[in-house]
Amino acid sequence: MAGSSFGKNITVTTFGESHGVALGAILDGFPAGVEISTDDIQKLLDRRKPGTSSVTTPRKENDEVEILSGIFEGKTTGTPIAMVVRNTSQRSSDYSEIASYYRPGHADYCFDQKYGFRDYRGGGRSSGRETIGRVAAGAICEKLLSQMDITVMAYTKSIGDVEIDPAKFNVDQIYKSVTAMPDADADAAAVKLIEKCREEGDSIGGVIEILIKGMPAGIGEPVFDKLDALLSHALISIGAFKAVEIGDGILVSKLKGSENNDAFCINGSDIGKSTNHSGGILGGMSDGSDIIIRAHVKPTPSISRDQKTVNNSGSEIDINIKGRHDPVVVPRAVVVAESMCAITILDLLIENMHSKADSIINFYKS
Amino acid sequence: MAGSSFGKNITVTTFGESHGVALGAILDGFPAGVEISTDDIQKLLDRRKPGTSSVTTPRKENDEVEILSGIFEGKTTGTPIAMVVRNTSQRSSDYSEIASYYRPGHADYCFDQKYGFRDYRGGGRSSGRETIGRVAAGAICEKLLSQMDITVMAYTKSIGDVEIDPAKFNVDQIYKSVTAMPDADADAAAVKLIEKCREEGDSIGGVIEILIKGMPAGIGEPVFDKLDALLSHALISIGAFKAVEIGDGILVSKLKGSENNDAFCINGSDIGKSTNHSGGILGGMSDGSDIIIRAHVKPTPSISRDQKTVNNSGSEIDINIKGRHDPVVVPRAVVVAESMCAITILDLLIENMHSKADSIINFYKS
Amino acid sequence: MAGSSFGKNITVTTFGESHGVALGAILDGFPAGVEISTDDIQKLLDRRKPGTSSVTTPRKENDEVEILSGIFEGKTTGTPIAMVVRNTSQRSSDYSEIASYYRPGHADYCFDQKYGFRDYRGGGRSSGRETIGRVAAGAICEKLLSQMDITVMAYTKSIGDVEIDPAKFNVDQIYKSVTAMPDADADAAAVKLIEKCREEGDSIGGVIEILIKGMPAGIGEPVFDKLDALLSHALISIGAFKAVEIGDGILVSKLKGSENNDAFCINGSDIGKSTNHSGGILGGMSDGSDIIIRAHVKPTPSISRDQKTVNNSGSEIDINIKGRHDPVVVPRAVVVAESMCAITILDLLIENMHSKADSIINFYKS
Amino acid sequence: MAGSSFGKNITVTTFGESHGVALGAILDGFPAGVEISTDDIQKLLDRRKPGTSSVTTPRKENDEVEILSGIFEGKTTGTPIAMVVRNTSQRSSDYSEIASYYRPGHADYCFDQKYGFRDYRGGGRSSGRETIGRVAAGAICEKLLSQMDITVMAYTKSIGDVEIDPAKFNVDQIYKSVTAMPDADADAAAVKLIEKCREEGDSIGGVIEILIKGMPAGIGEPVFDKLDALLSHALISIGAFKAVEIGDGILVSKLKGSENNDAFCINGSDIGKSTNHSGGILGGMSDGSDIIIRAHVKPTPSISRDQKTVNNSGSEIDINIKGRHDPVVVPRAVVVAESMCAITILDLLIENMHSKADSIINFYKS
Repeated sequence: MAGSSFGKNITVTTFGESHGVALGAILDGFPAGVEISTDDIQKLLDRRKPGTSSVTTPRKENDEVEILSGIFEGKTTGTPIAMVVRNTSQRSSDYSEIASYYRPGHADYCFDQKYGFRDYRGGGRSSGRETIGRVAAGAICEKLLSQMDITVMAYTKSIGDVEIDPAKFNVDQIYKSVTAMPDADADAAAVKLIEKCREEGDSIGGVIEILIKGMPAGIGEPVFDKLDALLSHALISIGAFKAVEIGDGILVSKLKGSENNDAFCINGSDIGKSTNHSGGILGGMSDGSDIIIRAHVKPTPSISRDQKTVNNSGSEIDINIKGRHDPVVVPRAVVVAESMCAITILDLLIENMHSKADSIINFYKS
Repeated sequence: MAGSSFGKNITVTTFGESHGVALGAILDGFPAGVEISTDDIQKLLDRRKPGTSSVTTPRKENDEVEILSGIFEGKTTGTPIAMVVRNTSQRSSDYSEIASYYRPGHADYCFDQKYGFRDYRGGGRSSGRETIGRVAAGAICEKLLSQMDITVMAYTKSIGDVEIDPAKFNVDQIYKSVTAMPDADADAAAVKLIEKCREEGDSIGGVIEILIKGMPAGIGEPVFDKLDALLSHALISIGAFKAVEIGDGILVSKLKGSENNDAFCINGSDIGKSTNHSGGILGGMSDGSDIIIRAHVKPTPSISRDQKTVNNSGSEIDINIKGRHDPVVVPRAVVVAESMCAITILDLLIENMHSKADSIINFYKS
Repeated sequence: MAGSSFGKNITVTTFGESHGVALGAILDGFPAGVEISTDDIQKLLDRRKPGTSSVTTPRKENDEVEILSGIFEGKTTGTPIAMVVRNTSQRSSDYSEIASYYRPGHADYCFDQKYGFRDYRGGGRSSGRETIGRVAAGAICEKLLSQMDITVMAYTKSIGDVEIDPAKFNVDQIYKSVTAMPDADADAAAVKLIEKCREEGDSIGGVIEILIKGMPAGIGEPVFDKLDALLSHALISIGAFKAVEIGDGILVSKLKGSENNDAFCINGSDIGKSTNHSGGILGGMSDGSDIIIRAHVKPTPSISRDQKTVNNSGSEIDINIKGRHDPVVVPRAVVVAESMCAITILDLLIENMHSKADSIINFYKS
Repeated sequence: MAGSSFGKNITVTTFGESHGVALGAILDGFPAGVEISTDDIQKLLDRRKPGTSSVTTPRKENDEVEILSGIFEGKTTGTPIAMVVRNTSQRSSDYSEIASYYRPGHADYCFDQKYGFRDYRGGGRSSGRETIGRVAAGAICEKLLSQMDITVMAYTKSIGDVEIDPAKFNVDQIYKSVTAMPDADADAAAVKLIEKCREEGDSIGGVIEILIKGMPAGIGEPVFDKLDALLSHALISIGAFKAVEIGDGILVSKLKGSENNDAFCINGSDIGKSTNHSGGILGGMSDGSDIIIRAHVKPTPSISRDQKTVNNSGSEIDINIKGRHDPVVVPRAVVVAESMCAITILDLLIENMHSKADSIINFYKS
């Protein structure tokens, strides 16, 4: 695999640059018989669409998806689903200047080192627009997961030092808040913080939390393809994500075993756990509790302040970058994180179907 | 891939259970012509060997590696290198009791859910002994990396609330400290803490930091196979690892772009950065600075205290687990983290060799 | 991998159905810096275009390719190259009848068994139109191979019992003959045979030969990823290909070692072979001689004659299929075979770059 | 994947050289709950064991397998199954001479070109002994297939010009004949031919046929991972295999569609085919009929006759190779072909379990 594909049983391959003709994805290995409409996909794409509020870039893109293959009479056919979103609002001229130097916090320098040159328009392949393909694929995976009563819910946990109050947690608010926070008060405070950052030509980081409900126990492969290892891979593969925590995460390093272990107990007729420090994952497999993950996202590196850097000719220079930037990555990245988790767990749910010989034998006997 | 293999260009496949006949690994795709002796591998294996101090399990295993293939006249031949370590100190009787219930913090329940039954002896495949194969493979990768002047150095950063003092950082101390801390004073304090935990029948968590020096810029693939994504996958795939941070890690969520961006500058005749908040990775590619990663490791779930759990028949019970346990995972896991990082970066260094068409053309023209 | 992708270092993923919106491919892992124009791709696509002669289907498709990503200022950037061809001449009504029964020699029944239903329009995913993506990707690979002085040349060796005469072999004729035969006389005879088949509502099979010149020795991986194993995989993955031979192929089963062994000899200052029974491959690696492969292609299963089959309700029926069919698969499949071989050998040429440790060390030292 | 692994859902990774310490395989992804004993594996290994008759090499190897992991209380646990066979009869001195030159028909020259040097003892990794790991893995796969009422049966169809008579086909005879022919008379004639070849210091080729019964329809992935494409890959990856045919194979190139198409019909209450030109595969998927494949195997390149070749110093020389050789590869390769087919179809049977969304949903609902 050459780096633009993710997943084993279902594989998403993305393509496209910020200022190229189009972006999109092919989702291969997705099973036949799931009803999918353009709307199912568009709904998720709209959650990452730019230009919709004061906290996102003013670049306006409709980001309308076209399905090129894999759907027949409204249902998936089991063949690859190709999806395309055309770029319509490229203003490459914005970027002519940055061709000559390396933007701090961006991959410009790395691209030049790796490939000998780069598509300097808007970050090219490393633009946040690459995630369009991930979200399109994620939308389809979530549709099937929902039929299995499994939900993946991502939301903004904090922006800068503005954090949600668990007591005010309101699921509907995630989709109303411009910050994707499930707490209206925190949303309001965060918007203020973001606007202040924008006014100062600056940007801010934040935390995304993902909650997966309904996962059966035993999902994930015990060694290298642990559920948490693949989720970490999936999340850190999103631009600007710099840390990931499973369950109690960084806290575990200060804890004792007697504090960190979750006792198993009987919940009704099922086996459950009386606490969930593990974040729903033990030994790389789901343990039947909710899965809880947090991702820490850096502030947008594109800021409108004076910065020092180096140009292509190897001289130190002072720059002030123009262009249309998001003052914060987090709100639009929430649905990307959700999508990557959806793809990952569906892939592992499928993998798990052949853990037992009896499952295989029964499949072909029936 | 079925979950026991890792890596694309060089692939390590591990096998073996805690109380089975043997454990080991096959390293495939490793290039020909590297001088490798059993000692090169044994040296790293000895760093994870149990029974060597008061902070590890008293289970004594020599963990002597035998190379079965892939080396001829002292050099790698380009064919798969199979390495085996036989188990010698199995005391399966220790585990007969735990067959009947699910240990808190362990994967017992998940294994039963996934496979219908489990090898209950010492955790079977999810035992820390599985990492023997990783370290054997990592030792070989480190040998080649050293010839490229790239070093991977892992050490214990903290155990519980005992943290190393950067001012006292001493590389040699890493290999002398029983805790693998590069600070003798912190080591002494940590040993005290661990011994107290052991006396109380308890265990403790900690933090491992990995520092990679000498990486050229541009290593890593820009989308799903980002350098940091694969390193996170590699690290979280080690049992008990619950969080991973790149560079400033969790701190970035509180930072502004103007604080988090690293300015590029000229260092002598090379392009460098005046700070390293990024931890040496931008856009999923190495940026030429040192790579810095931290992994947060939970306390050993095996503790000798009363715990509540559920047995195979679905009843809640009180247990007190016997057996020979490590009161802390961290010191022995340091070399495992180092090995996983070595495998990952060598794999990506190889991948990068064909980023430019000219490299391919020149390879065959010369 | 979910079955629509091929290749490890460079990966082609195809999508699209015969009567869907569009078909195409993503080529990922292709190196940066190769000049590619739409024309480079179109030229090969035109070799498989339908409606151009009496020996192909009268369905007219322009098959114009659009590049969506991966090319910047006329050169590959190292990022995935997405290419799309829109269907314009779908006449789905032709196929409304065949929805109700299983066409002999086609995959209709298998699709229903596998997926529960099928896109019955023109074979859907199993249509020959799927190969558009393969050819588009192959065109790009051939461009780079030509810069390495490696050529992949495929041609029709026989159609029915009309075989080319090696004495009349003329490379230019391959691209002039409607049958892709390198012998004008054989071409004329074959056209007659094909037209007779068409008049009789029948179809005919044939043989494609592929000749690869300029391959350095040592390409291919010695065990499962042998050069000949991957070429066989690549070729038999093309619809209607039923046999593949390397070098002397089926003849070897009658030969003695003393007849089949090729003696090594000195050619000028190079090591060569005095004969080439091996077809340029020994032990799964190229041996420096020309690589010679033959693929045996079945007659088009779509024929306009009375046939017996079974319908969806499980009754035996008599049918006579309407629609626009090729009376022979071979001439249009030649460029598909060439493309698949080009992709395969480029992939293995790249793989071979890291067979020796010195190559890796030198790459990063220089 | 680096070339020593095969399979996606179940993956076999082989290791070992002809004259190294040991050979073997890891089978990963195999499901839990299948009863496997050492005897199950040994039985198949014994079918490829050398030194058992006048038609094999006199090298005596017991080839006793040891299972290192993955089996607990007589059943597979779902974790990787590592199997090792130690070399005991290495006579490396036989090979000291061949270190200096390139044997015709062997991969010596290719190895030197690829890796810079080679393990010259008995072909090293390219020895037929490499297939021990394949057979060990195949034995386990066949065990599970038999529980699904699927059988893979390989036999010798011809040696030189001695071919079996279908009228005398006797399954039991396959395992009694030293040639693995299902026809006692042909076996006797073939033995005579082989002994004559041996006396003349020569060797002979042959054909292996594989018959797979009980495959449900719809197995195989429609594009690159076609059932026949993967079977071809699997077979041609065995040393000395130079051609593969599916069903009517090379004959199809001479046939008309009306002759080659198999009519669907009703067999009892099932859909079947009235003929089987397709060899049980249509569009890359099984069609419910028996699967029929043939592989053409070259004569052993190791012969005891004067041959011309080139030495390491680049001079042409005359050689006469000593050592213990098989005068024919076919009889011992039969079980290798059978094993590779068993691994391939089990892998695709598993892959097929998630072709339909309903299968996934039902798996987790029940």
